Amino acid sequence: MKALVYNKERIPVIRLIERPMPQLISDRDAIVKVTLSSICTSDLHIIKGAVPRAGNNIILGHEFVGEVVKTGDAIKTIKPGDRVAANCITFCGECFYCKKGFINNCEKGGWELGCRIDGCQAEYVRVPFADKGLTKIPDNVTYEEALFTGDILSSGYFGAELCQIEQGENVAVIGAGPVGLCAMSCAKLFTNGKIIAIDIDPYRLDYAKRIGLADYTVNPFRESAALFVRNITEGRGADKVIEAAGTAESFKTSWEIARANAIIAVVAMYEKDINLPLPSIYGKNLIFKTGGVDAVHCRTLLEYISKGKISTEFLITKTFTLDNILEAYNYFENRTDNCFKVAIRN
Amino acid sequence: MKALVYNKERIPVIRLIERPMPQLISDRDAIVKVTLSSICTSDLHIIKGAVPRAGNNIILGHEFVGEVVKTGDAIKTIKPGDRVAANCITFCGECFYCKKGFINNCEKGGWELGCRIDGCQAEYVRVPFADKGLTKIPDNVTYEEALFTGDILSSGYFGAELCQIEQGENVAVIGAGPVGLCAMSCAKLFTNGKIIAIDIDPYRLDYAKRIGLADYTVNPFRESAALFVRNITEGRGADKVIEAAGTAESFKTSWEIARANAIIAVVAMYEKDINLPLPSIYGKNLIFKTGGVDAVHCRTLLEYISKGKISTEFLITKTFTLDNILEAYNYFENRTDNCFKVAIRN
Amino acid sequence: MKALVYNKERIPVIRLIERPMPQLISDRDAIVKVTLSSICTSDLHIIKGAVPRAGNNIILGHEFVGEVVKTGDAIKTIKPGDRVAANCITFCGECFYCKKGFINNCEKGGWELGCRIDGCQAEYVRVPFADKGLTKIPDNVTYEEALFTGDILSSGYFGAELCQIEQGENVAVIGAGPVGLCAMSCAKLFTNGKIIAIDIDPYRLDYAKRIGLADYTVNPFRESAALFVRNITEGRGADKVIEAAGTAESFKTSWEIARANAIIAVVAMYEKDINLPLPSIYGKNLIFKTGGVDAVHCRTLLEYISKGKISTEFLITKTFTLDNILEAYNYFENRTDNCFKVAIRN
Amino acid sequence: MKALVYNKERIPVIRLIERPMPQLISDRDAIVKVTLSSICTSDLHIIKGAVPRAGNNIILGHEFVGEVVKTGDAIKTIKPGDRVAANCITFCGECFYCKKGFINNCEKGGWELGCRIDGCQAEYVRVPFADKGLTKIPDNVTYEEALFTGDILSSGYFGAELCQIEQGENVAVIGAGPVGLCAMSCAKLFTNGKIIAIDIDPYRLDYAKRIGLADYTVNPFRESAALFVRNITEGRGADKVIEAAGTAESFKTSWEIARANAIIAVVAMYEKDINLPLPSIYGKNLIFKTGGVDAVHCRTLLEYISKGKISTEFLITKTFTLDNILEAYNYFENRTDNCFKVAIRN
Repeated sequence: MKALVYNKERIPVIRLIERPMPQLISDRDAIVKVTLSSICTSDLHIIKGAVPRAGNNIILGHEFVGEVVKTGDAIKTIKPGDRVAANCITFCGECFYCKKGFINNCEKGGWELGCRIDGCQAEYVRVPFADKGLTKIPDNVTYEEALFTGDILSSGYFGAELCQIEQGENVAVIGAGPVGLCAMSCAKLFTNGKIIAIDIDPYRLDYAKRIGLADYTVNPFRESAALFVRNITEGRGADKVIEAAGTAESFKTSWEIARANAIIAVVAMYEKDINLPLPSIYGKNLIFKTGGVDAVHCRTLLEYISKGKISTEFLITKTFTLDNILEAYNYFENRTDNCFKVAIRN
Repeated sequence: MKALVYNKERIPVIRLIERPMPQLISDRDAIVKVTLSSICTSDLHIIKGAVPRAGNNIILGHEFVGEVVKTGDAIKTIKPGDRVAANCITFCGECFYCKKGFINNCEKGGWELGCRIDGCQAEYVRVPFADKGLTKIPDNVTYEEALFTGDILSSGYFGAELCQIEQGENVAVIGAGPVGLCAMSCAKLFTNGKIIAIDIDPYRLDYAKRIGLADYTVNPFRESAALFVRNITEGRGADKVIEAAGTAESFKTSWEIARANAIIAVVAMYEKDINLPLPSIYGKNLIFKTGGVDAVHCRTLLEYISKGKISTEFLITKTFTLDNILEAYNYFENRTDNCFKVAIRN
Repeated sequence: MKALVYNKERIPVIRLIERPMPQLISDRDAIVKVTLSSICTSDLHIIKGAVPRAGNNIILGHEFVGEVVKTGDAIKTIKPGDRVAANCITFCGECFYCKKGFINNCEKGGWELGCRIDGCQAEYVRVPFADKGLTKIPDNVTYEEALFTGDILSSGYFGAELCQIEQGENVAVIGAGPVGLCAMSCAKLFTNGKIIAIDIDPYRLDYAKRIGLADYTVNPFRESAALFVRNITEGRGADKVIEAAGTAESFKTSWEIARANAIIAVVAMYEKDINLPLPSIYGKNLIFKTGGVDAVHCRTLLEYISKGKISTEFLITKTFTLDNILEAYNYFENRTDNCFKVAIRN
Repeated sequence: MKALVYNKERIPVIRLIERPMPQLISDRDAIVKVTLSSICTSDLHIIKGAVPRAGNNIILGHEFVGEVVKTGDAIKTIKPGDRVAANCITFCGECFYCKKGFINNCEKGGWELGCRIDGCQAEYVRVPFADKGLTKIPDNVTYEEALFTGDILSSGYFGAELCQIEQGENVAVIGAGPVGLCAMSCAKLFTNGKIIAIDIDPYRLDYAKRIGLADYTVNPFRESAALFVRNITEGRGADKVIEAAGTAESFKTSWEIARANAIIAVVAMYEKDINLPLPSIYGKNLIFKTGGVDAVHCRTLLEYISKGKISTEFLITKTFTLDNILEAYNYFENRTDNCFKVAIRN
């Protein structure tokens, strides 16, 4: 008999298919042969239908490195053959916001790749404003080492930068996932004070400590984060807080562990509105900086990597090929093997 | 080139395919040939992924009427050839909750059809506990007239019943959609007082008045619902309120328009938590009854239809065939032609 | 020098002074010589300025028993010399709400004594609608035994009544303070099922068990109330819940421990709005009855006391005289000696 | 008869009485003869019992100017005979927070005068850390002109400073009361862009425009503030927002009218928690700076007044004497004559 059937599986929503090669459209475009890409939590959001502006039939993906194949006439900063890291945000560099460095609000850009235009989970990808969106990878840096430069490492750096961290300050990072670990790495560039990792996942806390990113770890399910942080900060609380977890509980933790006049960088994406207890925190003079990454420091970050000051390769829990990318999505979404990130090799 | 493509369209999530005929599994089952079915907002929720317990590859649909084809040995109340209306809730009739009439919390049932087991948007459907879940349609009632008995008409009746409406009482119904209109119909069975329809959609308000279900209509976008209701109720507010809209605003309206000691039946599904202002309503002694329909009155409702006391056929804005059910989903979801409900004819 | 000084102490806000004797004003009034009175949490609210409608220079107090001294011409139910218990709510018995038994919303009454008109913390008090507001105390009942009839015992009874408790049902009472203990007493009148006391004060929990009112006690600070209650109710939860604590946490507990289709009587006063998680409790079909006491059962309650079915005298932790009532306020407010209630003897 | 009476009036809570002259206690103290003082909304909060830490029997008041009468040995910055303006915040200048300029969180200070220690609504007042808390008034500035320097003018300046306003930027100020008007004055020091006043009180909006502080005024009760602001800012929204109103609605307005990457200085005191819609504002990269005034710029502000760049004398709606300060409290609290502020002359 005929029947209307609901198919819950992911397969029909994302499909690995054959597509024509991308072409240059504008003279500021570049075509890049993708050598290594990754999957972002945002990609999962799209698949779940939580990103209404995502275009139908677009190629997913915005985290990648590759080799330049072709460039528009206006592109002078890179040339075919160059190894490049891509910026997750597309930006013109010339509008009201770009001129202030607020590229996330670029009037002609924003999150474009893999959302509103074809992205990088393919063999080739067209990158608009390629002079802004692509950065040459230093010779001594591998594709694996550079893979996360333009997205999660930029996000971690953005959190540290929003916090205006000064030497000696103690920094708490809530969420010891990929962005949180990157934030710890970047915070260490600015301070020799204590780095405190806060998460409810014991594996991630252990990991943060084992690889030397966190000096202290706290699990709010097991003890009071506020008490713990005050105990190791002369009773004051953290000088700066990077909130990379994105729940009602983690937001509450963020202001509870902060000392008076702290800056709290809220870099996580939230699914729900949260409660801001202005009466309780009155006089504590907290600063909350919210935001999506203004990823303008790829060159600086690649230099740090080149000099061995930052490393993110440890985040690649497993590498897949483009042919088994659907398997990679499952592996990443289910956090198989305590997965932080996957890499897709073409 | 190969590329991972995101397909936003609905088509791959629900598909009209060929399926084997359902078979009797238990001796309380019946097989029904579906003659007419409908699409429920809950079906849309499933498709959007908002009903996690919905099974993969299940046939959707739980609103239908049809002809009994086969019955299990324990079924005595209906027999092959009978024209029946189906109850949207599956219930055993024997457990702790069923014995109290709280069938929505049946320990062996609940919302099963088209959610956890195969539903009715097909040529045939297996109905468990068929002696409880199917009701014979009176001879003078057509399939079209009976179609909504077991779901939205039951919901409207449930709201009216929760309110324990007494003769002469004024009843406000928030939401003039399918369930709200059914609630108005049912409220009229119990009272000759004023029926007040509240909605923000002028078309639906006009409709409610035009077909004689609402004595008064209020659009809270244009005037104060609380003031309006008090003005026509000697300053007191509505004796009973049926909240069938499901938003933060409509919930607020529900207690604002209620008189002291009113009963408020909250029959809508909410997507978000709401604010209950206990300090402000202290002493007003309001009763809030929340709930999913305990659809146990199908026989009674069919009798009302048979006697011309209730009619719901006007809710069928357009009729489709099973072959073009995907089109019906679009039509219903987009409220094309101010659609209330669609019917699917097999 | 001259200076504007802020005086934080209570003394200037409430003062024991000389006042003229009250006189009959209406023919439904009575003058009562107060023999024993008590202090209510509501009196503390007034003093803190949290009851804006409280009149300036009014005599406080609404919980009392005494001897009738004079009655208006329309009063036939009591006569001078009668020992009476007073109802905390003043009501006419004739208006729209009174006729339905909803006396808390009496159009001519409400909480009058000690709030909008002179109350009972004095030697004499005028009681309006005295045929409704005063009940003769049976001969074998002492003033001490009758003292709480018209307020907290009525509140406990109101909670039990709202719950429509049936024989065999398990009833959870949140808050083991004066009203909570009264609610347990009254619940026992209707069911031989389990009475479960929930409080965060170990003394009160122990007390509730020691005097035989609670069969089980749970402290949510030490264990999960939801788990505990399910464990002793065949996994279902409490059939009925009386919420007499009045906090965000206690409200959350109330629906967590309730079984599907439970009635939750919310008799506590709340200082803040609370969160009602309609999406999470959808389908659980809970009924929330909110309210201020409809204290219409004084006669019934005095009969129960007379027959030894209910006792509340144990709530009097200490007795003061009117001359040291200011000390009594401090004692009560600070819960000295784990005070439940104080009595003021004239 | 004896009766316990509740006295609602303010008189017994604040009383004008005789008090001994204050004496030097520490060598950083000064004794000041108060020449002119004012009443702050915070004083009203104390009287209502909303400031639990306020001491009993303390002299109220923290807004004043006067003449130095005596100084401790450690005080070199001022001497007897000097005309001084007082800082509403007491701070040591030496602790962890003071060294960073965050004096509101001084480990030895905070809001002391008229809250935890005797304040200025008297003939004389002792000022601790007088070298930090008192600033000499320039010769060409009158007491009336200097009166608001250390409190509401500092608050307005604080809001403007938090916003890091740049030349040409458009600044919206929510709340056109005393602090809001001061904020507009101060914003004008940093930008020649548009100053937009937002309030629901037409009188205050008109006033803000009439005296030249606001270029545009918007009443959110009459039109959409978000639309209005976007219309006059090339569609972007306000570059900086100072929120000086303190309600759920005004907070919502603050982020609705802000352009991407705006700074929102929340200088109002809130009585309730508010909702922060992180999902809706994601990517807008807003910065929320909350706080109580770090009033460290009195010298700078007095110079601005001296040069005629700022004026606040217009805020004095009426002047009273210390003898009729109780009348002044009523006048101020009830906003008689649309009162902004009152002055108390000794």
